Parts: sequence; structure tokens; C-alpha cells
Amino acid sequence: MHYASDNTGPVHPKVMEALLRANEGYAPAYGAEALTREVTNQIREIFEAPDAVVHLVATGTAANSLLLASHTAPWDTIFCSRVSHIHEDECNAPEFYCGGAKLTLVPTEDGKMSPAGLRAAIEAEETRGVHGPQRGPVSLTQATEKGTVHTLEELCALTEVAREFRLRTHMDGARFANALSTLGCSPAEMTWKAGIDMLSFGGTKNGLMGVEAAILFDPARDTEFQLRRKRGAHLFSKHRYLAAQMQAYLTDNLWLDMAAAANAACQNLADGFREAPGANLMYRPEANILFARLPRSTHRRLFAAGAEYHLWNGYLESGAEDERIAARFVTDWSANPSDTERFLSLL
Amino acid sequence: MHYASDNTGPVHPKVMEALLRANEGYAPAYGAEALTREVTNQIREIFEAPDAVVHLVATGTAANSLLLASHTAPWDTIFCSRVSHIHEDECNAPEFYCGGAKLTLVPTEDGKMSPAGLRAAIEAEETRGVHGPQRGPVSLTQATEKGTVHTLEELCALTEVAREFRLRTHMDGARFANALSTLGCSPAEMTWKAGIDMLSFGGTKNGLMGVEAAILFDPARDTEFQLRRKRGAHLFSKHRYLAAQMQAYLTDNLWLDMAAAANAACQNLADGFREAPGANLMYRPEANILFARLPRSTHRRLFAAGAEYHLWNGYLESGAEDERIAARFVTDWSANPSDTERFLSLL
Amino acid sequence: MHYASDNTGPVHPKVMEALLRANEGYAPAYGAEALTREVTNQIREIFEAPDAVVHLVATGTAANSLLLASHTAPWDTIFCSRVSHIHEDECNAPEFYCGGAKLTLVPTEDGKMSPAGLRAAIEAEETRGVHGPQRGPVSLTQATEKGTVHTLEELCALTEVAREFRLRTHMDGARFANALSTLGCSPAEMTWKAGIDMLSFGGTKNGLMGVEAAILFDPARDTEFQLRRKRGAHLFSKHRYLAAQMQAYLTDNLWLDMAAAANAACQNLADGFREAPGANLMYRPEANILFARLPRSTHRRLFAAGAEYHLWNGYLESGAEDERIAARFVTDWSANPSDTERFLSLL
Amino acid sequence: MHYASDNTGPVHPKVMEALLRANEGYAPAYGAEALTREVTNQIREIFEAPDAVVHLVATGTAANSLLLASHTAPWDTIFCSRVSHIHEDECNAPEFYCGGAKLTLVPTEDGKMSPAGLRAAIEAEETRGVHGPQRGPVSLTQATEKGTVHTLEELCALTEVAREFRLRTHMDGARFANALSTLGCSPAEMTWKAGIDMLSFGGTKNGLMGVEAAILFDPARDTEFQLRRKRGAHLFSKHRYLAAQMQAYLTDNLWLDMAAAANAACQNLADGFREAPGANLMYRPEANILFARLPRSTHRRLFAAGAEYHLWNGYLESGAEDERIAARFVTDWSANPSDTERFLSLL
Repeated sequence: MHYASDNTGPVHPKVMEALLRANEGYAPAYGAEALTREVTNQIREIFEAPDAVVHLVATGTAANSLLLASHTAPWDTIFCSRVSHIHEDECNAPEFYCGGAKLTLVPTEDGKMSPAGLRAAIEAEETRGVHGPQRGPVSLTQATEKGTVHTLEELCALTEVAREFRLRTHMDGARFANALSTLGCSPAEMTWKAGIDMLSFGGTKNGLMGVEAAILFDPARDTEFQLRRKRGAHLFSKHRYLAAQMQAYLTDNLWLDMAAAANAACQNLADGFREAPGANLMYRPEANILFARLPRSTHRRLFAAGAEYHLWNGYLESGAEDERIAARFVTDWSANPSDTERFLSLL
Repeated sequence: MHYASDNTGPVHPKVMEALLRANEGYAPAYGAEALTREVTNQIREIFEAPDAVVHLVATGTAANSLLLASHTAPWDTIFCSRVSHIHEDECNAPEFYCGGAKLTLVPTEDGKMSPAGLRAAIEAEETRGVHGPQRGPVSLTQATEKGTVHTLEELCALTEVAREFRLRTHMDGARFANALSTLGCSPAEMTWKAGIDMLSFGGTKNGLMGVEAAILFDPARDTEFQLRRKRGAHLFSKHRYLAAQMQAYLTDNLWLDMAAAANAACQNLADGFREAPGANLMYRPEANILFARLPRSTHRRLFAAGAEYHLWNGYLESGAEDERIAARFVTDWSANPSDTERFLSLL
Repeated sequence: MHYASDNTGPVHPKVMEALLRANEGYAPAYGAEALTREVTNQIREIFEAPDAVVHLVATGTAANSLLLASHTAPWDTIFCSRVSHIHEDECNAPEFYCGGAKLTLVPTEDGKMSPAGLRAAIEAEETRGVHGPQRGPVSLTQATEKGTVHTLEELCALTEVAREFRLRTHMDGARFANALSTLGCSPAEMTWKAGIDMLSFGGTKNGLMGVEAAILFDPARDTEFQLRRKRGAHLFSKHRYLAAQMQAYLTDNLWLDMAAAANAACQNLADGFREAPGANLMYRPEANILFARLPRSTHRRLFAAGAEYHLWNGYLESGAEDERIAARFVTDWSANPSDTERFLSLL
Repeated sequence: MHYASDNTGPVHPKVMEALLRANEGYAPAYGAEALTREVTNQIREIFEAPDAVVHLVATGTAANSLLLASHTAPWDTIFCSRVSHIHEDECNAPEFYCGGAKLTLVPTEDGKMSPAGLRAAIEAEETRGVHGPQRGPVSLTQATEKGTVHTLEELCALTEVAREFRLRTHMDGARFANALSTLGCSPAEMTWKAGIDMLSFGGTKNGLMGVEAAILFDPARDTEFQLRRKRGAHLFSKHRYLAAQMQAYLTDNLWLDMAAAANAACQNLADGFREAPGANLMYRPEANILFARLPRSTHRRLFAAGAEYHLWNGYLESGAEDERIAARFVTDWSANPSDTERFLSLL
């Protein structure tokens, strides 16, 4: 009953096998081997983007920060939701990589910005000439930090606002596969066809050891990106091990299968919460994250039985017995059906 | 009828005389002359702070940024009001000088943060260990960008919240003299006695050519501040001309006289707006800034007669005739009584 | 015959096994699991440094930059050899992480600074008050980029110069194990007992997939280091896989065995070059790197037979036949004896 | 007998008069007044560069840093002489403004780089792909920090090397007027006609209170420069006082007259040193700076009589009587002929 995070789970065995296979003999360093070329092409094909710039890094924060820095001047401000990972969970890494840029927080109920909210935020950075920050890119998260998934229409509506102000768009896709599995569309449809310029294509939260692909659909900043990656100390010498993971991930739809499994487990939990007395879902759980309010007594029972998850918004483990507390549950590819059943029965 | 800003007015003649007096013969560079020593001591006496670190720079943004950088790590977030100058009007200079720190915006109605709003903002930067930004200093503006002035009680209530979380406090005093003139208290009472650790002590908006004193009431970061000033290219070689201005400013209460004159002119304008048909004040004009809503027809009349001021919040010079538009009026030490009368008669 | 670099070789099978073992079930993220605690203690024991701060990152550049940043202010200059990796091969990463600090290059013949050269460099950064850069830490590389190894006496002589000026010392130990194997001393003797404050303890070049330990023998900057690591996007969520590699590395002296194998292979090559007609060694090959000058005809023969290594200092593959060209040969743990023999026979 | 620096002298009376004249009534802030437009055009005319971007700042370090930052990426290295002001006297300001770039030091005997030395330094930053720093602009100083002046041929030879590698060129012209006075050529000939892309056009060391013009002969980075200036806190609100100084400076050749006076005084000193027993000039004093070696006994006599100048290279005021010590003498526009005579008689 491990629902603390999708980064607490194991690596998929097929990925481990790929690492073992890659571990034969010598290979040129820094991505100059065949595996990296192959996986780059694989990603370009999957995204129907033959000119896309694709580079691998090991953490999602690195992918986000390096991509944003490629299109954010130090005097710019990045528009993102108030609960975005780049704002709340990266210890000012985007600001560091962008040389001191700002983040403008757009209100959100459920992890998504609304086009109107985004427009208002952009317009509020009114024209002050050189005095105020300049308008930089728009960053959105798919699936969101609240477990919701933007529809293609919602994505397009947001990127249209950005386009109107000639702003670039970034998608934090730490849970890209989970969202794609939900929408059932193509990777291209959920990105560049929907107006996305840059994508952090996550793998770590979905069964890899630590690999994300940073994708720039416009190839203009390729060299700059590579220099930023090296300067940020994110260029791996034994690069083949990043490439091998990503290759296994993309082969035979493993990435989609893992995402589907995680999402299905989440749906099972959601069904349980919908029926559990005194509990309710806080947002629509459309991917592999679920936020719920539950009576403290239920929480005690779950914790006593060994369930692991995070209390949210400052809720403490001890407190009034009749208090309803907020908690987050995240499932991953390795979610165990018997665990789920046990959890549901405890609920 | 010049109400565009207090930085459009001239330098006080006594300050020009001081510059001429300082322009005799040779003087050691970089602040090693007698004038700088004298003015440093003068400021320490006026603030009853014999150990205070005092350094002169030429712009308010430099004073704010260098002071904040002295007590803000790159992974910190600075708490300030949504309309603060450091957020809206410094093109990310604080972020630049702090090496990529963040600003957390506290809601405000009238330029002041409320203690509850500040506390909520601080608490919302919940304990995420190394994942989220760390809590950095609190910065407030006195007088505020909306023309209001914190009472001593209000200042203390805000700094007490900061102290509770062990956070440093900074006061952007670009219009310090105007606020002091309003409160009628001592400089010490409005700063360190009210819990302020760092002060940007403005001169430029109140009759100087371009001098601000950066004051650290706690002397621990003196050397670091000086290195930051030099590295920021803000150490003047011909430093005597900064010192001479500041010395004249502080001599015979010139600074307070100039602030009182500016405030009085603002009060006169305020009285006019209170009586003007269809107009109303947006905030309490407690220093030398006044925001008013006025009918577009009134605006046309004023502009046609040569009055200068800024429309606000995106209001345009052309538009529906019966629209009430927002505008900002700022007075300075040199405000001309006959101009004021003329303006009032036009109102 | 793969002598291009020690980062082109495979991961040791025991390390792969450790990864497979670590891949069981769930584990807390970000280093909060048992493996990380165990490996931290293991390193403290090996270094006889129970209070040392130990953090894992995935690249040597990250270890170097984060460690240096912990003790380098943006207005400082770091003293290092002209051929140091931090100067030549990190695309300004140290400058990035240190917020714009400078590197002062100390002359070197063979990768080592001399105490006199270091002292001269430090003294040349003469006391200009706030005008010039301030003296920051001294960084040395062990084994050096030229394949030489500082004796303990040489290390102590360099750190004594640093101490005299109250400067911190950093050791880039990308090839720490190779140097230790050469000297046959203890890890403590080659570091803190020799006056070293910070160590980049390399693993990647010596049989790991991508793990380095950043070690601060003085624990004062632990929190700051962790914030810097997260802000730099170098905190791994699935941290167990870094810890597992390092644990296998340190268990049963695997790290020393691998280094000894690499060094032995290098010695074999060195013997060959000493006897090869027209060839000569450029520096004393004391670890696993060898620089040699060889006739172009020899080079052609080696390349034709499939040997891989880097030409140096702008030497090109084509050119005058009788020219003697410089080349670098690096061995790693997996060096194949039959390869070596073949190479020697070609020589 | 004030020869400590050209920034210890007074402001020229005509400049003070211009400040007084500018101090009439209201003027738009931030350079939007007529004076700034006028002086911008004046500079464009003087430099025969109608499209040049011209912006005023108050310190030479600001001009240098902002200009260099306009054409230096954080992963670049700037080529400059070992004794350049940007390296030795700006406390890492260029590194700060360039976001962590590097400076590559080119050897120099007399303050000038040689074309061969520059080429060697550029070539030594050999092609390491993304691993090493990238080649950034070349910065030279005219007149140099050692008091020498590049001939037009020398300038062209250096910029040709830069052009060959497609690198931008910057001239630190803190003493531009002194050099121009020596060469007797036109400002255009000494800058863009000689291949210079960016110029820090100094005024502060030559009779102004604190104004430098940053000039970009290629207008492409105008907006970026202005954003950098604001972000660096170097945009003056009461900008008219910068413009007024520069306007007076350029009117009726005041700048050239002041430079000629300073140079003449320096020549007089030089003649004295040439004849003084036991003294000798260290470099050719071609502008307003003179380095000399003189017997300590002579130094004692000069100091006792009140002469002010800097000892150099760590020479101390006390020491062996027969030691010959190095000292720097700088003259400015206000150099007093009777002072000079007295100094010469003491020599």
C-alpha cells in the first residue's frame, strides 16, 4: 500500500535488462554512441517531429530548468500555475538556470490554469517598458500536480493565449505518459499540434531509474541547450545508460503500458474513496494522483495498517478525531492489485 | 502642474551649492575622503544607530537590491506586497543581485501588507525541506507605492510576524522622508525601533540628484555589502559628490522641509479631488502620492491645460467620455503653489 | 584497444548486481532510504571522518561545482592548475554555481601546481580592497589530468600554502582511487590528514554508471550544500540507485581493485612506449593516464588496427609522416590483457 | 602634487555650470528628455555613427560590464590583457553581469596585447565542443592601464585577429580622450573604423562627476542593453544630470582640451623622470599615466613634500634605503603647473 509518490517505486525489469544489455564493452562518451542516436530518432518518430531537438537528462527539474532557460531571458517572467512543480518543488532551480528570472503565478483550482486567468496574469504584467519584468514563456503541467489532465481543447486554449502575446510554451510532462493514456491521443496531438514548444518528457516517475527527455520542437536553440546542459553539470559521460533506459521505455509501448497500469490503480482507489463514508475526492483523479479528504479515524486505520501517503496542506498526524484531513495518493506502474484491494477494504 | 513623478523635479539649490563646494581640489576616491566619513556619522546620529553600516549608492534599485542580497540566499524567497517597487519596477534587479531568489507576493489593498496576509504568505511556503524555496526577508515600503503610510503600530505588527519566523526585515524608503514627515516620529522609531533591519534611505525622489543611503542596522554584513556594491558596479570613484549631496540633504533638516512641502502640496490636491464633481480618491493620500478616479472629461480638461500625470491600470487617453479613469499624481519639494491653485481651479 | 577515456568503459558487473538488488519494491525518495544512510556511514568510516558531510551526485562536474560553491563567494577567485578539469572541461560550470566567481590559473608542467607557483598566484591577487577579486579556495586534482599523482608531501606542501592564507582546499578526485592505489596510503591520509577540506570522490570513471560522492570534511555547510544540490537539479528522486552503486563500489575493496587493474594496464602501456622506437612519455604515468609522443607512422599503424585514443594539442590525423604527435591513452578497470598485448606488439 | 589617480580631481567648472543649467524646472525621467536625445545625437555625430546605440551610465565598471554582457554568453570566455581593469579592478563585475562567464588572460608587457599573443590565447581555447568555454569577445583598453596607447595599426591588427575567429571587440575607453589626444585621429578611426564593436566611452576620469557612455556600433542589442542596464540598477531616474555632464564634456572640445592638459602634465613629469638620477620610466608614458622606478630616497623626499601617488607591485613605504621602488603617477585635466614644477624640482 505504497502511495507516497511515483518516485518511490522500482524500475521496470525490462529497463534493467536494457541496462544490462547496454553494459557490453566500450562506447563513446557524452552521447556519441549509437544508442543515443537511436533513441533520439525514436522520440522524433513517436512525436512525428523529425526536426525536434532531443536531449536526455537525469532529473525532471533539470529538464524543466534547462528548457525554460533556453527561452527565458533573465529579465523575463514565466507564467505558471500557483501549484506548479517549477514554483513549489524545485528550490528556485528555474530562477537559477534562467539567471534570475521571475515566475508569475496564475490562480488555479485544480492544477490547471484557465485561459482567462492566464490572460489576466499576462495582461497584468502591463507595459512598463524596461521597468517591469518582460513577458516570458508559459509553462503548464500535464498531467497536473493535482492529478487532473488538460483536454486537448484546454491545452489549445491556453497556448492560443500565449501565441496571442507571442510567448513560448513549455509543458512539464513529468507524468506525460499518464496524461496521454487518459486522453488516448497521439504524443504530437498533446504537444506541438496543441501549440507546445518545449516538453519535459518524463520517465523517472513512470518506471525509469532517472531519465527525462528535454524536447525542443523548434530546433533553433539546440547548441545553446547543449551548452546549458554541460554548464549545469547535466551532461552524462556514460550517456549510454540514459539512452538504454529511454529506449526500453519507448519500445513495445512499455511506457504506455506502465502509465495505464498506474492510472488503473488510481481509478480503483478513486472508486473506493467515492464510496468510503466521510471521504470525498478533492479533484477529478484523471491520471495517477488522487487527493482526498477523509476522517482522521479512517486515516488512523490506514496508517496503522501500513498504508503510505502524504498528508497535505499542513495536516498533522495527530489532532481532533472528527477532523477531516487532506491526503495525496500516488500510484505507479508497479501498483500491486492485492495491495489495492486491501487498501479499499480498509477504507 | 507637474505631477508625473517626484523624480521629474529639480535638485534643491542647497544641494547644488554643496556640490559646488565639494568641487574644490583633490579628494581621495571611493569614499575615503572626509565628506563620506562625516555623512556616515551624520546618518548614524540621526538614526541613533552608532554601529549602523551606511553606504551610498546612486539609485533606489541599487540600494534595495544590494541590501536584500546581503540577507537573501539564492534559494530564498522575499516576502513583499504585490505592488512593491522591488517586484513591479526593477526589471528583476533583486532577483539578479540575489542570485536567482524568488519574490512571494502578499496581497494588498492600499500598498500595505496586513500582518495576517504576511503570516499566511509565510506559512504557505510550507516546510518542504530542500524542495521549496526557503523563507527569506520581509520587505515593506514606507511610504507605500499607493501613497499610504504605515503607522508605527502597523510597522511593528509586520516586523513581529517576521521575527516570529526569524526573518530579516527591509524597508524600501524611497519616500522615507515623506512618511517620517507624516508620522512626526524619529527616524529610529520608524526603523530599528520598529524592528527594521535594513533601510533604503531615499534621497533622489526628495530633491537630490541621485543618492540613496543603504543602511544595515546590524553591522555583520558590512564587508560583504561593500563587495556586492563594487561587484554591482555601484561604487563611485568620485564619491565625494554623493556624500556632498547627502550631507546637504541632512543639514538643517532640509530633507524634512522638502518632504513636508511635497506632502502639503499633495494634501492640497487631495482636498481638491474630494470636492471635485465625479472624482474620488482611491487610497488615503498620506504622503506625496495621490491616486484618484476622475471623469474622462475632467481628465481632458486637465491635460489640455498642460497638467502632467500618469493614467493608471491600462487606462487610455482616448475612450468613452463618461468613463471614470484612474490616475496617479505625485508632488515633490518644488511643487509650485500657483500651479496647485491652477490645477484645483481646473478640477 | 580502447584508450579514449575511462568513461567509455562498462560498469562493473558487481555494480549492476547491486542495482538489481536495490530494485526491489518501494523505497523512500530523495535519499531517505536505508541504502543512502548505509553508504554515507561507509564513506565516513573509510575516510575515518565520522562528522563528514557526504552527498551523492551523478556527475563529477556537479560534485566539483557544488563543493566549490559551498566555500566560494561570487567575488572570489579559485586557484587551480592551468590544465584542471574545472577550468578546461566544465563549460564554466564552477563559475555558474559560484555565481560568477573567477578562476586563477596556476602554471603547471605535469598537472601539479608547485607550492611556489601557488603562492605566487595567491600573492599576485594583491590586496586591492574591494577592487579586485577576493582570494577563494585552492582546488587540486588527484590523480592529475596529466596522469601524475601528488605525493603526500606534495599535497601537504600545497595545502600549507592555502592554510597560510586561510584558504579552503578542494580535491577533484575524479580518479581518486587510481591515485590512492598508487600511493598505497589511506583515504584519510590523502585528504583531510593532508589538509584537504572538500573532496569530489569519483566513481564514474572507475566502473560506476554515474555516481560521485561530494564530501565536506567540515560539516558546517551541510544544509547549504543540500539546497545548492536541489537548486542545481542534482537531487535524485530515485536516490537508491546512486547509493546502491556506491555501496557496491566500496564493498570488498572493489573500487581499489578496479583502480589497481586500470593502473596496471597503464603501466604495461608505459613500458611499451618506453621501448617503442621514436616514442617517448610526456609525463610520468603514475595512475591510469599516459601521454606520449609517437611518430605519425606508428599512430597510423595503431589507428589502422583499431586502437582508440585522443590526439592532443591540436594534432591532426593527417600531416607530415615524420612528425611526432602527442596522444593520450587512458585505461580503465576493464582493460583487456590481450588488447594490451596486441597494442604493445603494434607499438 | 596629486598624482594618485585621475578620479581624485575635481569636475570641470563648465560641467558644473551645465548641471546648474539643467536644474531648471521639471524634466521627464529615465532619459526621456531633450538633453538625452541631444547628447545621444552629439555622440553619434562625433563618432560618425548615426545608428550607434548610446546609453549613459555612471561608472566605468557599469559600462564595461553591461557592454560585455550584451555580447557574452555565460559559457563564453572574454579575451583581455592580464592587467586589464575588467580583470583586476572590478571585483568580478564582468563575470556577474555575464552570468558566470570566464576571462582568458593574454600576456602583456606594457598593457597592450600583441596580435600573436591574442591569437595564441584564442587558439589555446581549443575546440572541445561543449566541454570547454566558448570563445567570446576580445576586450582591449585604450589608453592602457600602463599608460601606453595603441596605434591605429596596433588596434587594427588586434581586431583583425578577433574578426578571423568571428569574435566581437570591446574597447575599455576609460581614458579614451587621452588616447585620442595622443593619436590625433578621429573618434571613428580609433573605434569602429579600427574594428571596434563596443566602446566604454569614459568621462569620469577626465573631468566629469560620474558619467560614461556605453556605445554599441551595431544597434542589434539595443533593447537588451537597456533591460540589462535597468536590471543592473544603472538606469538613473534623474537622467538629465548625466546627459548635462556629457553634453558639456563634448561641447567646444572640452573633453579633448582636458585630455590634452592631462597628457601635457604627464609629459612634463616624464621629462623629469628621464633626467632624475636613479629613476627610470617603466613604460612609454603616452597618455596621462606614468610608471617609474625611483630610489627610495627620492620617494621619501617626494612624500615628505606632500606628493601623492601609488607605490606599485607590493612596494612598501618602508624598506631598504637603496632599493628602487615602482610607483604610478596619474595626471588629470586640473594638473597644476606650479605643482608640476615643484615636483620636478624635488625629483
